[in-house]
Amino acid sequence: MSTEQNREQGRTRPLGVAMIGYAFMGKAHSNAWRNVASFFDVPAFEQKVLVGRDAAQVAEAAGKYGWAESATDWRSVIERDDIDIVDICAPGWMHAEIAIAALEAGKHVLVEKPLANTIAEAEAMTAAAASARAQGVQSMIGFNYRRVPALALARHLIAEGRLGTVRHIRAAYLQDWLSDAESPMSWRLRKETAGSGALGDIASHAIDQIQYLTGQTITEASGLLKTFVAQRPGLDGLEDVTVDDTAWATFWLTGDMGASVEASRVATGKKNDLQIEVYGTGGALTFNLENLNELGFLDATAPVREQGFRRILVNEPDHPYLEAWWPQGHIIGWEHTFTHQIRDFLLAIDSGEAPSPSFEEGLQVQRVLSAVEESANNKSTLTMVKKNVFSLEGA
Amino acid sequence: MSTEQNREQGRTRPLGVAMIGYAFMGKAHSNAWRNVASFFDVPAFEQKVLVGRDAAQVAEAAGKYGWAESATDWRSVIERDDIDIVDICAPGWMHAEIAIAALEAGKHVLVEKPLANTIAEAEAMTAAAASARAQGVQSMIGFNYRRVPALALARHLIAEGRLGTVRHIRAAYLQDWLSDAESPMSWRLRKETAGSGALGDIASHAIDQIQYLTGQTITEASGLLKTFVAQRPGLDGLEDVTVDDTAWATFWLTGDMGASVEASRVATGKKNDLQIEVYGTGGALTFNLENLNELGFLDATAPVREQGFRRILVNEPDHPYLEAWWPQGHIIGWEHTFTHQIRDFLLAIDSGEAPSPSFEEGLQVQRVLSAVEESANNKSTLTMVKKNVFSLEGA
Amino acid sequence: MSTEQNREQGRTRPLGVAMIGYAFMGKAHSNAWRNVASFFDVPAFEQKVLVGRDAAQVAEAAGKYGWAESATDWRSVIERDDIDIVDICAPGWMHAEIAIAALEAGKHVLVEKPLANTIAEAEAMTAAAASARAQGVQSMIGFNYRRVPALALARHLIAEGRLGTVRHIRAAYLQDWLSDAESPMSWRLRKETAGSGALGDIASHAIDQIQYLTGQTITEASGLLKTFVAQRPGLDGLEDVTVDDTAWATFWLTGDMGASVEASRVATGKKNDLQIEVYGTGGALTFNLENLNELGFLDATAPVREQGFRRILVNEPDHPYLEAWWPQGHIIGWEHTFTHQIRDFLLAIDSGEAPSPSFEEGLQVQRVLSAVEESANNKSTLTMVKKNVFSLEGA
Amino acid sequence: MSTEQNREQGRTRPLGVAMIGYAFMGKAHSNAWRNVASFFDVPAFEQKVLVGRDAAQVAEAAGKYGWAESATDWRSVIERDDIDIVDICAPGWMHAEIAIAALEAGKHVLVEKPLANTIAEAEAMTAAAASARAQGVQSMIGFNYRRVPALALARHLIAEGRLGTVRHIRAAYLQDWLSDAESPMSWRLRKETAGSGALGDIASHAIDQIQYLTGQTITEASGLLKTFVAQRPGLDGLEDVTVDDTAWATFWLTGDMGASVEASRVATGKKNDLQIEVYGTGGALTFNLENLNELGFLDATAPVREQGFRRILVNEPDHPYLEAWWPQGHIIGWEHTFTHQIRDFLLAIDSGEAPSPSFEEGLQVQRVLSAVEESANNKSTLTMVKKNVFSLEGA
Repeated sequence: MSTEQNREQGRTRPLGVAMIGYAFMGKAHSNAWRNVASFFDVPAFEQKVLVGRDAAQVAEAAGKYGWAESATDWRSVIERDDIDIVDICAPGWMHAEIAIAALEAGKHVLVEKPLANTIAEAEAMTAAAASARAQGVQSMIGFNYRRVPALALARHLIAEGRLGTVRHIRAAYLQDWLSDAESPMSWRLRKETAGSGALGDIASHAIDQIQYLTGQTITEASGLLKTFVAQRPGLDGLEDVTVDDTAWATFWLTGDMGASVEASRVATGKKNDLQIEVYGTGGALTFNLENLNELGFLDATAPVREQGFRRILVNEPDHPYLEAWWPQGHIIGWEHTFTHQIRDFLLAIDSGEAPSPSFEEGLQVQRVLSAVEESANNKSTLTMVKKNVFSLEGA
Repeated sequence: MSTEQNREQGRTRPLGVAMIGYAFMGKAHSNAWRNVASFFDVPAFEQKVLVGRDAAQVAEAAGKYGWAESATDWRSVIERDDIDIVDICAPGWMHAEIAIAALEAGKHVLVEKPLANTIAEAEAMTAAAASARAQGVQSMIGFNYRRVPALALARHLIAEGRLGTVRHIRAAYLQDWLSDAESPMSWRLRKETAGSGALGDIASHAIDQIQYLTGQTITEASGLLKTFVAQRPGLDGLEDVTVDDTAWATFWLTGDMGASVEASRVATGKKNDLQIEVYGTGGALTFNLENLNELGFLDATAPVREQGFRRILVNEPDHPYLEAWWPQGHIIGWEHTFTHQIRDFLLAIDSGEAPSPSFEEGLQVQRVLSAVEESANNKSTLTMVKKNVFSLEGA
Repeated sequence: MSTEQNREQGRTRPLGVAMIGYAFMGKAHSNAWRNVASFFDVPAFEQKVLVGRDAAQVAEAAGKYGWAESATDWRSVIERDDIDIVDICAPGWMHAEIAIAALEAGKHVLVEKPLANTIAEAEAMTAAAASARAQGVQSMIGFNYRRVPALALARHLIAEGRLGTVRHIRAAYLQDWLSDAESPMSWRLRKETAGSGALGDIASHAIDQIQYLTGQTITEASGLLKTFVAQRPGLDGLEDVTVDDTAWATFWLTGDMGASVEASRVATGKKNDLQIEVYGTGGALTFNLENLNELGFLDATAPVREQGFRRILVNEPDHPYLEAWWPQGHIIGWEHTFTHQIRDFLLAIDSGEAPSPSFEEGLQVQRVLSAVEESANNKSTLTMVKKNVFSLEGA
Repeated sequence: MSTEQNREQGRTRPLGVAMIGYAFMGKAHSNAWRNVASFFDVPAFEQKVLVGRDAAQVAEAAGKYGWAESATDWRSVIERDDIDIVDICAPGWMHAEIAIAALEAGKHVLVEKPLANTIAEAEAMTAAAASARAQGVQSMIGFNYRRVPALALARHLIAEGRLGTVRHIRAAYLQDWLSDAESPMSWRLRKETAGSGALGDIASHAIDQIQYLTGQTITEASGLLKTFVAQRPGLDGLEDVTVDDTAWATFWLTGDMGASVEASRVATGKKNDLQIEVYGTGGALTFNLENLNELGFLDATAPVREQGFRRILVNEPDHPYLEAWWPQGHIIGWEHTFTHQIRDFLLAIDSGEAPSPSFEEGLQVQRVLSAVEESANNKSTLTMVKKNVFSLEGA
């Protein structure tokens, strides 16, 4: 039954929500479900059931995070009549199977990024999403940073032409949690289980933002990947790390734009530093996720004497999402990017308008990541620097 | 006569200095010559003669900038017995001819960067410098940012191991003086006269710093170049801009390091924003030329609870070059990178130890720039992003 | 029954919580109650009942904010056997009556700051709290900024001697929501209802911090008060504003310390700018509430060459309260100062150890505010500047 | 002979300059004299003679700083016919005698701040300046921070009404060079020789700025002074420090404004941190001397969504004094506040218009300092905080 039909017929009960996975992302999504209705006007829903593999642990998590029940078999859960929404926080290699099954069962689906670990899976998911959408069943991928108020404001300003014609974007996502070479091996560091390293995990956010903020599409990519810590201690001695810990990429976009991204998990001292700079003919914007309540804005049409990057504290009722929160200057935390995401997802379900970012948009990001990897594997991307005839030593 | 001979025999008169060129760089170098002896103990010298093409203008400039005489024929000046040092601030295409002639005439030579507009010229200059050096005649290229106290301190900290093993460097040089598409055509925007655009003019500083700070050498390069404003108003209508206004490059260095540089003259709102970040296993450094009296430093060996990037105000007597200046916290300006450069050049002449950066080091930077251009011209550097089967419009 | 008795006998049911008031502070406290158990190990409790004057509105708020029931008569609620805790978010003039009644009824009490509008009321409350405490009934005043992780860390660092001997503290609390002279009259701007203006509302936070961070007590005060916008539009035309909109104060503390506070509601462009600087013989700290996840720290025992204020991103598991939250660099919002406050209050009830800040501490802040007002009303505080004999005009 | 007469009659030779004193301020002033004509169009002048007490040392300083001669007897120098300008960098207690003698001898006088150590001396100097001015002989006091381009821009913006009606100013001048209690005793720490401590030395700059930026006059003052390090090692053991090392003051100004100043020489970690904030009904400004090329500006008339403090890099040709210097973004140093001061002083001499700040303005600052001291000595300025009946220990 399509949402529109649902609305016409009058939904007689709250939407039932099931969530699969209760690790880091499960905790963050639960927090959003638990709080969204205290701040925003959203259709009624219930946190019905949390699904995980370990019965005891998932039961405890359900209690802690506000879910009425817990379960271990996601297949039976998505078949339940009282479940309308499936929120998938399981690891990436499980996304395709669960999402396709849920969509086919007529459930609205929210899936964490990355969409899938392979292009083939992502394509299958996208096809399933398109079919479901035709039936009024919605789907969305969790690029939650689109719901940072400052970045939503940035997109508005760009769309309104406040930057003139955008020329280039500089982005970086820098963390340091793998800086220590003694930090142990894990599934995130194996290509088979993780797909890629810093590239897929965090550069993907930057890539989505580049396209989201400008409304343009990346068409060509040049990239390099590096694994600075090539081996890490496993259970039986050192094991090979088979994904990158640092990634560099340069892009051409439609609209005659250029962009660059650098992502690292070994950038000592940087904790969660997603930084974005957008340069246009009429202005510029800057952003850093470690100060996510702020947006830098330079209006190049002001008299030169008065120009300068201003720090907008994006905490006013006039700012996206902020009317729901606290008085001006009382900053909100990282977690509410998810609260806003759930709000928008629920409103889309209610209105019957397809939410964004769609699986198609998630697939596009996967294709960009794939092109970066292909370029990085291509020997011709790099040019040797010729040696000086005169050595510095001999000088 | 070599400096060593000179010292042994006792120099009986102050060093005579001639400077060629009196535009932006000439003004900056003159300022350094005029002030260096008021702050530093340097060998005695005299600002003898300023050389330029327009007799009246160069005479006026000489008076204003503290030169005893002016002249229009650089060839006769470098032959004068009372001239010991030739400081070349003429445009890049004149560097090779003047520098080689001066070195052959036994004059110590300081030449502005870039070393030359072509690799062939740079090689010839480097050969001449090597020959002259064997005779005690010194030469140096003006990568003046090596004399920013904060960057000199950065190099010390890295050399002392305070960053552990350096892994990657992020650098950018962002300006916006060509952001306006109506800004007119000039010789700096033609490949024949300027060699390249943002790449050679400003990325070169970042490239020199990457090698200077780490003590490593760039061996491979990947790059892309872009000219956002492809035509500009000339005297007779629109003319083609034949150099880049934005450049992106990624590098591998000896020592298993990676580095990236982005340079732009159209980064709206950025004025002289040379930013450098260095990440090592034991710490990190950050720098921005718009706040050149500051160095960011994170010591990753401190307890996690207390870690954070600190802003070192590099204005203490303990800091490089600073004992000569003002009390702590009284910041110095950009111009004194040149004052320090002249000081170090004079001390090298006095001691007979070859100064750095040498012409060889300048040539190495030219080779890196050349590799970036070659990569940028190579079609294989870029990989196409495959289009989604499902168009966003159709969704 | 004391908590200790309660624990010994085994509490057989969750603690029942009632909250009185559902405006700004009620929303913030509710959010804390709703979420605290999802992040922290706290004794079991239930959000039983929300109390307000308007039956329909309080019922709606109760549903939105997670309370099981609503009520309009606080007196009957505090008598209920299933209520163990009373959280008072009603306006200041109601604090004394409710708090004393609740304490006498054996309920643990959390009361928002200021403790009361008059010293007499505050003294009566403090006496009631002391009596109740002797019976194991706890009480606490909501100086929530003590639970900012960065400020809790600051207190630890000072207590550990990392600043050496603290000499002076600079604090300011700057807002601008009354900068607009057309902003209307309200109860907050009348002395009868609000007690004071910026002084009691926001300077009180700064005063509490000065004493909390240093562990010292303010003994003498000098102050000035000013009302820049003396009249504001009321329902029947302009009305007199009878409280300050800007306050300045200087203090002497025990321990031979000095401190200053400036508070303003008309500091254009400042939104929620509580800034604190602490200077000691061995180091210094800086803080700003608009970036509440950060603490500035300078270690003056480091070599001069490396000294500088560092920005500690107080988001590590090693930092106070942070283990419960998100991975490093994922910042938390202002609201969780209340979440932490509820956690600490619940743990104190559970352990039977009196929580801090106590009503005595709240009373001490009231006495300091009173001394500031007294000084401000004293003509002798100000000295006239003699006029120049030579007028500037006549010069 | 008045300047006007001089101009009418045609000055036939460059202005002859004598400078008295060659310590810190003498070095800074010399630098300004040596460079001003290389950047600005100023009337011709010559650095004639440097005067000091020690013949050998002053001769060496003269050579280093660009003075043609040196001398030890200031009285004979100010009588010389070839001297037109006397620049007084001697200690404060010598100002009155030298300045009055020089003015009476018909020499234009620039005197370092403070004007004098006593009000009586300052009044005598002001009288002498008024008499001399009537004869076309100019005088000026060296509040050099009026010549910081960013502060000159700030004054323009305020005068143009860009801040609407200014309400309050917050200023502080924080240094830490006396933070170390082992730092030795000196004449600067004795009341007889220094007049006062942080108050006269650095708070005076902040006080001058408050009046300069707003164009208003301080009429009333409340202040407190403190000497945290009361004894310091002298030649024969510990000696009493008889001046303040920290000062707090609050002011009322004409124009219904308030202002506060805090000055400290023991603010650990702060080097030369003169910070100024100006709040008006229509905007606000912020400044910090440690980043003197920047001005913070908030335009409160912009849409709320876009408001924020902008960082203006005051380095554009459109900015005060900047046309003379380097291209945009190439920052200038602290020393050029003096270069600009000399420029303005020379232009005033040339035009015959009295320069500002005049001795009258210097006297006004002295009177404010005096009022602060008087208030600080007045017991009634401070109010005791009553003790809590309930001790915290007993709780």
